[in-house]
Amino acid sequence: MTGLPRAIRLREVGPRDGLQAEPPIAPANRARLIEALTGAGLREIEAVSFVSPKAVPSMAGAAEVLGLVERVPGVSYVALVPNQRGAELAFDAGVDGLSVTVSASEAYSQKNVHMSVDESVAEVGQIVTLVGARLPIDAVVSCAFGSPYEGDLSPSEVDRLGRRLLDLGATSLTYADTTGMATPRLVHGLVERTGPHIGLHLHETRGTALVNAYAGLEAGVIRFDTSIGGLGGSPFAAGAAGNLATEDIVYLCSDLGITMGVDLDGLLAVSALVASLVGHAVPSRVAAAGPRWRLAAAEGV
Amino acid sequence: MTGLPRAIRLREVGPRDGLQAEPPIAPANRARLIEALTGAGLREIEAVSFVSPKAVPSMAGAAEVLGLVERVPGVSYVALVPNQRGAELAFDAGVDGLSVTVSASEAYSQKNVHMSVDESVAEVGQIVTLVGARLPIDAVVSCAFGSPYEGDLSPSEVDRLGRRLLDLGATSLTYADTTGMATPRLVHGLVERTGPHIGLHLHETRGTALVNAYAGLEAGVIRFDTSIGGLGGSPFAAGAAGNLATEDIVYLCSDLGITMGVDLDGLLAVSALVASLVGHAVPSRVAAAGPRWRLAAAEGV
Repeated sequence: MTGLPRAIRLREVGPRDGLQAEPPIAPANRARLIEALTGAGLREIEAVSFVSPKAVPSMAGAAEVLGLVERVPGVSYVALVPNQRGAELAFDAGVDGLSVTVSASEAYSQKNVHMSVDESVAEVGQIVTLVGARLPIDAVVSCAFGSPYEGDLSPSEVDRLGRRLLDLGATSLTYADTTGMATPRLVHGLVERTGPHIGLHLHETRGTALVNAYAGLEAGVIRFDTSIGGLGGSPFAAGAAGNLATEDIVYLCSDLGITMGVDLDGLLAVSALVASLVGHAVPSRVAAAGPRWRLAAAEGV
Repeated sequence: MTGLPRAIRLREVGPRDGLQAEPPIAPANRARLIEALTGAGLREIEAVSFVSPKAVPSMAGAAEVLGLVERVPGVSYVALVPNQRGAELAFDAGVDGLSVTVSASEAYSQKNVHMSVDESVAEVGQIVTLVGARLPIDAVVSCAFGSPYEGDLSPSEVDRLGRRLLDLGATSLTYADTTGMATPRLVHGLVERTGPHIGLHLHETRGTALVNAYAGLEAGVIRFDTSIGGLGGSPFAAGAAGNLATEDIVYLCSDLGITMGVDLDGLLAVSALVASLVGHAVPSRVAAAGPRWRLAAAEGV
């Protein structure tokens, strides 16, 4: 435990990854959620995605959401974009950065975006050419810890794909456990290969998001994608239950003395807000139980 | 990760802790569950508890359950007992060992068993006097990582309570996170104080059971209580959602190369059995998603 980082950075993906598998929510409420998240101290928000509203109806109205948000200085509002057209729209809507995705799995890439991995990498190259000088671009490598089609993927191949994306002009890398196949062993193994200068995007499919995040901390990783309430999961990845919940890692790291600039009590209020917006309880157990220091109420006689 | 143990021992508490908060299940089906668990390779089963059937109706018929089980040589069938009378009944029913519980929290002890901690320790002394020469007795210290009433408890106090129980004649110690207040920091802190020769009994109240187990492994702990499916939680501890699921730690440790003698595929079949017995899905996500090496079925054209 002595080797844990002192501070970490969270990219809150709830308004995008969290909501994309839910029934559509009005842009005004999505903007309200984003404002609540920055109010709790989050400083990077994946706010929207510029994807086809036919493919992902809940992500329609991205520009409208961004237009409604009262921007907080110092906060980075980023958009996921699948292609050049999305990148142009996002740039025009005034985002502070882009996320782009390339799968480490050839089969997942074909099924998810109907492109080969090489075609997907080329698309990233085009996006970089288009807006790379003006916006930071985080390249997310999906299925980085294995694919439900091919099984294990070689960490050196996954690392090589990441380096290709950096060489093309991506400004940072995130490795995503799209279908919840990561384990502490695999997290350590990949970070040994890549170095700790990567972000991790973890899923709860097998209940391992938090233990994998902890393994990431041990390996020196300081950037994590999280989703308020633990909402999310790709609509294209069967059984991809939930993202690492923001509450859960904030709770863990608060206890470990790791700084994030996020207030857990404020965050739990946002968690209640998002539950009311989606109309069901969120997966995070910290959201349900509260932190360990919230004691039982004194009982009257 | 280099310091992880090579092998660990699991005490399966599903038939007791897992089922006690469920509606009663017929003794023949409880016996069938126990046999399925040993069939999957588990070698220590907390099979029953000899508590008042009025207080915990689902635990009625303990002797009948034990009488129905086809015993497997080398398997230890143990019972939780709250007092001398329970210890006598358990001994007469032919158990291989006892679990007894003492709370580290005075307020929890009063509310849960209507005894002070000292009275509870004295009861353990009486049980040891009665059967200690003939049966191993594991003393479980509940609320070892904090109490919902008093908050933090001093690790040195908790350790001192454990040592008192060993001095009285308990043959082993288990520290229980009864209301899910443990964190990796607290697990490391307590094990540094006690030494690694303890068992851990972890709960999912705040989604931390697996990360705490991982911290326990790092600290050298080799004994864990687990519950098939993650069922359980004290009927007396508000919000004590589920035990550490047997599937979850077997999945984690299989991936880490840690030996347990338990077959995960066989265990997942038992998980399906217990879900059918209790009539609802179990909490374990590994039970729902399967292990990472279970790939997507090849799709026809």
